[in-house]
Amino acid sequence: MKDFYAQLVDGYDQNLNKDGVNGERLAKRFASLAEIGVSEQRFWRPGYSADEKKAKELVKEWMREAGFHVREDGAGNVIGRLEGKNAEAKAIASGSHVDSVPNGGHFDGPLGVLAALEVAEAWRETGYQPEKPYELLIFSDEEGSRFNSGLSGSMAMTGEADLDEFTALTDFNGTSFEQVLTEYGSSLEGYRKAKRDITEELELFVELHIEQGKKLEQEQQPVGIVSGIAGPAWLEVVFTGEAGHAGNTPMRGRKDPLVAAAAFIQRVAELPATISDTAVATVGKLDVSPNGTNVIPQEVKLIVDLRDIHEEPRDQLLEAVRQEANRISKSSGVAAKLSQKTKIKPIPVEEKWQSQLSESLRKFNITPIRIPSGAGHDAMILGRHIAVAMLFARSRDGISHNPREWTSLNDCVTAAHILKDFIEQQQSATAG
Amino acid sequence: MKDFYAQLVDGYDQNLNKDGVNGERLAKRFASLAEIGVSEQRFWRPGYSADEKKAKELVKEWMREAGFHVREDGAGNVIGRLEGKNAEAKAIASGSHVDSVPNGGHFDGPLGVLAALEVAEAWRETGYQPEKPYELLIFSDEEGSRFNSGLSGSMAMTGEADLDEFTALTDFNGTSFEQVLTEYGSSLEGYRKAKRDITEELELFVELHIEQGKKLEQEQQPVGIVSGIAGPAWLEVVFTGEAGHAGNTPMRGRKDPLVAAAAFIQRVAELPATISDTAVATVGKLDVSPNGTNVIPQEVKLIVDLRDIHEEPRDQLLEAVRQEANRISKSSGVAAKLSQKTKIKPIPVEEKWQSQLSESLRKFNITPIRIPSGAGHDAMILGRHIAVAMLFARSRDGISHNPREWTSLNDCVTAAHILKDFIEQQQSATAG
Repeated sequence: MKDFYAQLVDGYDQNLNKDGVNGERLAKRFASLAEIGVSEQRFWRPGYSADEKKAKELVKEWMREAGFHVREDGAGNVIGRLEGKNAEAKAIASGSHVDSVPNGGHFDGPLGVLAALEVAEAWRETGYQPEKPYELLIFSDEEGSRFNSGLSGSMAMTGEADLDEFTALTDFNGTSFEQVLTEYGSSLEGYRKAKRDITEELELFVELHIEQGKKLEQEQQPVGIVSGIAGPAWLEVVFTGEAGHAGNTPMRGRKDPLVAAAAFIQRVAELPATISDTAVATVGKLDVSPNGTNVIPQEVKLIVDLRDIHEEPRDQLLEAVRQEANRISKSSGVAAKLSQKTKIKPIPVEEKWQSQLSESLRKFNITPIRIPSGAGHDAMILGRHIAVAMLFARSRDGISHNPREWTSLNDCVTAAHILKDFIEQQQSATAG
Repeated sequence: MKDFYAQLVDGYDQNLNKDGVNGERLAKRFASLAEIGVSEQRFWRPGYSADEKKAKELVKEWMREAGFHVREDGAGNVIGRLEGKNAEAKAIASGSHVDSVPNGGHFDGPLGVLAALEVAEAWRETGYQPEKPYELLIFSDEEGSRFNSGLSGSMAMTGEADLDEFTALTDFNGTSFEQVLTEYGSSLEGYRKAKRDITEELELFVELHIEQGKKLEQEQQPVGIVSGIAGPAWLEVVFTGEAGHAGNTPMRGRKDPLVAAAAFIQRVAELPATISDTAVATVGKLDVSPNGTNVIPQEVKLIVDLRDIHEEPRDQLLEAVRQEANRISKSSGVAAKLSQKTKIKPIPVEEKWQSQLSESLRKFNITPIRIPSGAGHDAMILGRHIAVAMLFARSRDGISHNPREWTSLNDCVTAAHILKDFIEQQQSATAG
C-alpha cells in the first residue's frame, strides 16, 4: 500500500524528526498495518481474527527489534516490557489496539500502539534508559465488531470480564466466544488467566488515540488532553398510546405516543446544559409502530444515550431524564416504560495528569485544550483500577470508524513527541 | 358463515322490523357477503378481484329481485335504477362499495349497499313508489388495497380519474391496471366510458357508512350526521442535520434533525386547535437515519397528515405547518425539505341536508350529532359534482379495517330506517 505511505509523508515536516522520533518509520508502519485486513469490499480487522493476529505479530516483531521482551496473554493481549533502571518500580504503560470496526480507518487503535513503540525507538536511538519499567500493551478486540461487545482484552487483564456473559456471546458467524478463542490459539481458561494484578504492577496507563470529534480541528491544535472518559448509560423508553385513524380521531383526547416522545426528546436535548458542561444526551434510535401515514402511532420505542466524564452528574442527568419521561407520561396519558440498558462508570482523568500533559504540550507550543472522551477506550477499563491519562490527536473533519478517517503524519509525530515527553516526566516522579 | 348471522341477530330488537324494513333479511345478506373473500389467512376482497365481482353479482341478484334495473359500467360500478313516478326528475342515489382492505371487516362498505337495498325492499313491501327515480350504486375498488390507490370506481363515474396516472399503476402482483381491468372483463376504454353526466342525472347521493371512530359510542347514539368529508393533505418533511458520535459531539453546536423534528411534531399537534374545531394533524410515519443508539441522526423523514372538512382552514393549517417547519429549520440550523404529496379537496355537507337528516333522526328519538368524516369515501368524489349527504352508524370501540369491526344489527337497521326516511323526504322536495 504505497499510496497510503505516500499520502502520509506528503507534506511531512522534517523538523519533527528529532529526539530519536522518526516520522517516516512511523508512516511505514502505519502503511504496513493498513495492508492487513483489506478485502475487495472493505478494510476490516475484527477482534480475534487471523488478521488481528497478523497485525499483532508484525508489531511484536518491531517491538522485539526495539528491545522489548514480548509475551501474549490468554486473552490475546500483547505485553511488551522494557526494563527500567529501577527494576522494583511499577511500570508506566502505554498502548491501544489493532482491531477495527467493519469499513473502518487506519488510525483508530494503531496510532496509540505505534506512537508508544516510537517512544521506545526514540529511547533506543538516543541511548535513553527509563528509570521505571515501560510496558507497551496491545489489547484484543477493543471495538467489539466481533461479538457486538468490545473491550474484551482489557476486561480480561483487569479481571472484570463476566465469564458467564462472555461465554454466551456468539460472533457474526454464530461462532461461540469459546470456539473463537480456541481458533485463535487460546481457551476460556487462558482468557480467565489473563488477569493481572495491575494495581501492583502498573503505576499509570497513558493512551494516545485519535479524537473522533472536531474540537482540535476547530481550535487548530494538533494534540489535546482528555479530561475524562464518559461512560455511557443507555435508557430505553417505550411510549405506548392509542392507535387510531388520523382522520377520524379528534385532536382532543388523543393519546399519541409520538407527540409524547417529541416532548421528551426536546427535554432530553435541554437537560445536559442544566447539569454539567461535559454531559451529553442523544436520542439516535427511534422506532414508530405501526408507522403508517394515516395512523396515529400505537408505540414509539427509543433509546437515550447519556454520557458524562463524571459519574455523579451523569447519574443525576439519568435521573432527570427518567423524571421527564414519567412527567410527560402522566400529563399526556401515554404510558412510558423505562428500562436501563448499558450503564458504564465514567472515568475522569486526575487533574495531576492533565496538568503534566499540559506542561508537555506547552513545550511544543500547543495550547492545552481539554476534551472529554465520549467514546469508550481500553483506558476506561484500566482506569477503574489504576491511574490513567489520555491524549487525543486531531481527526480530519472529526471522522472516524470510516475509510475517510485521517490524522496527518505531522499530528501523529507531534503526538508521539508529547507522549514521549509525558512518559519521561514520570521517570522522576514517585508513584502516587 | 352461520356464526356471523347468529352473532348479528343475537339481541336484535324485533320492534325495529317495521315499515317494510327487515333486520333478519339484512343480517342474512351481511352473512352471505361475509363468506366471499375468506381464506385461511384472513378476510380480503380486493378491488377488481374475482371475489369483489362475486359479491357484486350476489347483490345484483338481490337488486333485481327488489325491482331494480341493473347494469354495470366499464369501471365495474353497479348501477341499479328504480323508476319514480316522475321519469323526468333527477335521481336520488345511495350506495357504497363491497371491496375491503386486507384483513378487513364486514361492515365497511356493505352496510351502505345493503341499507340502500333495504330501502327499496321496504318500498316494495309497503307498495310505496317514489316520486323521483332511485339509484343504488356499488362503486368498485373504493379501499385502494389493490393498487395502493382507491376510489377507482367513483372517479371513473365522475370522469376525474387521470388515465395516465391510473395506467401507470400496478397491483400487489405487479399486474398493470389495464391487465387487471381486462381480467375483470372490461378494458381501459370501458373504464374511460364509465363517465356519466351525473350533474344532469343525479340530484343527490347519500351514503351510509360505519363511523370508524368512537364519537357515536361516546354519545350513546346509534346513528350520526356527517358534517363533511375531510380531504387529506400529506406534507413530507425531511430534516437533515449533521450526524456525529453521540459521545464525542458537545451539545452546543449540534445540528440534530430528531430534536428539530421533535419541536415540529409538538407544534403540529398544537396547531389544529388554533385554526378549526374539526381540523386534525398527525405524524404517523417517521423514519430516523442511520438510527443507531450512539449516533446523532443525519436525517429524519416524516409525513404530516392534515385534514379538515373545509378547504380554507385545511389549507390555512397546511400553511401554518409549513411555516413551523421553516421556522424550526432556521432556528436550529437543521435543513428542512418540504414536499406536498396527496392533497384532496374536502367536501363539506350542505347545512340543508344536515338539517333534514336531523329531522329524520329526531323521528327515531336520536339526538343529532354532527361528525366530520376524517376518512375519504365515494361520496367525497361525487361531492365535487353533485350534492352529497352522509350518515354514520356507530362502530363498536371505533374499530375498523380490522376483523373486530362491528356494528350491531339494531344500529344497522336503525340506520336503514333513517336512510329511508331521509330519501323519502327528498321525494316532495324540488331539486336545488
